[in-house]
Amino acid sequence: MTRFSFQIHATDGKARTGVIQMQRGEIRTPAFMPVGTAATVKAMKVEEVRAAGADIILGNTYHLMLRPGAERVARLGGLHKFMGWDRPILTDSGGYQVMSLSELRKITEEGVTFASHIDGSRHMLSPERSMEIQRLLGSDIVMCFDECPKIDQPRDVIARSMEMSMRWARRSRDAFDAGEEHASRAALFGIQQGALDEGLRKASADALIDIGFDGYAIGGLAVGEGQQAMFETLEFAPGQLPADRPRYLMGVGKPDDLVGAVERGVDMFDCVLPTRSGRNGQAFTWNGPLNMRNARHAEDTGPIDERCACPTCAKYSRAYLHHLHKTGEMLGAILLTEHNIWFYQQLMAAMRAAIADQRFEAFARDFRRDYFEKR
Amino acid sequence: MTRFSFQIHATDGKARTGVIQMQRGEIRTPAFMPVGTAATVKAMKVEEVRAAGADIILGNTYHLMLRPGAERVARLGGLHKFMGWDRPILTDSGGYQVMSLSELRKITEEGVTFASHIDGSRHMLSPERSMEIQRLLGSDIVMCFDECPKIDQPRDVIARSMEMSMRWARRSRDAFDAGEEHASRAALFGIQQGALDEGLRKASADALIDIGFDGYAIGGLAVGEGQQAMFETLEFAPGQLPADRPRYLMGVGKPDDLVGAVERGVDMFDCVLPTRSGRNGQAFTWNGPLNMRNARHAEDTGPIDERCACPTCAKYSRAYLHHLHKTGEMLGAILLTEHNIWFYQQLMAAMRAAIADQRFEAFARDFRRDYFEKR
Repeated sequence: MTRFSFQIHATDGKARTGVIQMQRGEIRTPAFMPVGTAATVKAMKVEEVRAAGADIILGNTYHLMLRPGAERVARLGGLHKFMGWDRPILTDSGGYQVMSLSELRKITEEGVTFASHIDGSRHMLSPERSMEIQRLLGSDIVMCFDECPKIDQPRDVIARSMEMSMRWARRSRDAFDAGEEHASRAALFGIQQGALDEGLRKASADALIDIGFDGYAIGGLAVGEGQQAMFETLEFAPGQLPADRPRYLMGVGKPDDLVGAVERGVDMFDCVLPTRSGRNGQAFTWNGPLNMRNARHAEDTGPIDERCACPTCAKYSRAYLHHLHKTGEMLGAILLTEHNIWFYQQLMAAMRAAIADQRFEAFARDFRRDYFEKR
Repeated sequence: MTRFSFQIHATDGKARTGVIQMQRGEIRTPAFMPVGTAATVKAMKVEEVRAAGADIILGNTYHLMLRPGAERVARLGGLHKFMGWDRPILTDSGGYQVMSLSELRKITEEGVTFASHIDGSRHMLSPERSMEIQRLLGSDIVMCFDECPKIDQPRDVIARSMEMSMRWARRSRDAFDAGEEHASRAALFGIQQGALDEGLRKASADALIDIGFDGYAIGGLAVGEGQQAMFETLEFAPGQLPADRPRYLMGVGKPDDLVGAVERGVDMFDCVLPTRSGRNGQAFTWNGPLNMRNARHAEDTGPIDERCACPTCAKYSRAYLHHLHKTGEMLGAILLTEHNIWFYQQLMAAMRAAIADQRFEAFARDFRRDYFEKR
């Protein structure tokens, strides 16, 4: 069986659509990966995640190493068996969450020591330990361990961080390859850094290409720089990466972010936005986001979105969702998360179809018109 | 179509099994009704509630009159359409929750004024208003408005409360019948009061029978008296009610409560225990309850209950449920609530089968042996 292949079926401008083949199943691109932080896509059953159209989900190394622990997951048969999802799982390296969540961080060339945000216990992550954890979890797509620096630092700080991440990428590659049995089934992605700087991004891309990876992620964005700066960076960053490998924009984003990034040549995404918003009462629709707590929905018998094919829109009114979110009922989070994940998957499917039909420019224009028009 | 009929298919000792026919579907008895307080069985989709085997669910007048409001539910097409459940719904009268949840209560012969526990707003419930609310909700089985007194009061206080509840039962009957269109589709149940006193229970039963109802509830129990006192009361209370009408023990209970009450002639139950326990990490099994947060489950690859046919037990390990409840993941509540509702429905189905086969005594003995044996 193919360990990992990526076939591009059509391109339209810089946008591409295709399919990644892996042993646990295929991933249609452009792909959105729902985030399953702690071995669960929050508020959803895995069969509901699959029914929404997801081919792959994401698991977080940082959360899983703390609870229930990578060695425990391995003893229980791996992450797929543990959480009941038998299709591909991409795991991040823990690098980003260590920076954003942990306490008492100490970063050296060797790696990062930190205190758990849950109980203060001390832990260590390095390229070698991150690869070991992702192997213990049984990840299908493993991410290199990197440092994700704050975006607003001087160029020399960003450069030194990127250069260390490239040395860590080399160590990640070596440690991944040393796990021979797992390496025969799984894929390894490098992560480009360099913030908003074209020269640093190019140096990072060249360093990664020199090592060689199955896919290439664009890291260090969606960290507060704003959509305009992100899109400006995406004018050059994807093109610096190999055209025949999947390009994964980490941690992105809003529906309009996804359309703009696909337009600029990105193939894969992950983001907590649809799940987190579902818990907080925000619904995504083809006509922009809705706050279900708003009183104007209280007696609205229509669905969240007339154009949505999800089970929530097929069965429930905006009035019911409004009631559930106003009363804090768990079913409100359940139904709205499911809608949002369906919406994201339908958006990806619509983009794939538009690229295949060579009408992506018109699709993107119509999408933005509907999404941003006043309702 | 039949408005309401109750056929007893078999009896075994005092235990009975049969079926209630109503326009929205049939209810197999003994029946357990999952509680859908605020227009949702907490953490479950209605199709999951149905798949578990529930023929009927319960809605709470008190919660629904406060949010989203009975008139609003009526404008939205009724409770069934609002929450997507098309089978029978029993609504309580609000009497019990007014006593247990509201503030600044003032009780007169006319009814009860109180302040909402949510926002302090002032409201009124009376037999007439309770019947109106239950009609606006579109309830299939309407409960009389009654007072549920604290169990530990002097006999004369219990007696006066019961006598007022019987006058309120008469007013409930008249107000229900005045809603002719609704009364042509729905059923009305009286509620016996009298705490633990056989004489007061008899007087209450006679007063209700004199008015005439489709079914008869045993109220005022499961309020802190303990299982032994409850069972002692159930030695005489069900027999005071008409043998050819369903007997509904309100707010009960633990699995062993249900078996003991069916043994004493009860046909219907409701309780928040399986849903609330599901959110709190308590699993019901044929071998007694389990606390899923207990560390002994952390690496247990077995299901919650080997004998359970629910989707959670088919797919997930105790280790996974343990992880989800330790990390506070919503999926823990979702999967465990579903298991508990399935467990309760499987228990009811097992009791119905045992009664039909004239082996209820052996069933109850085996149940208690397994449920209370040390594991």
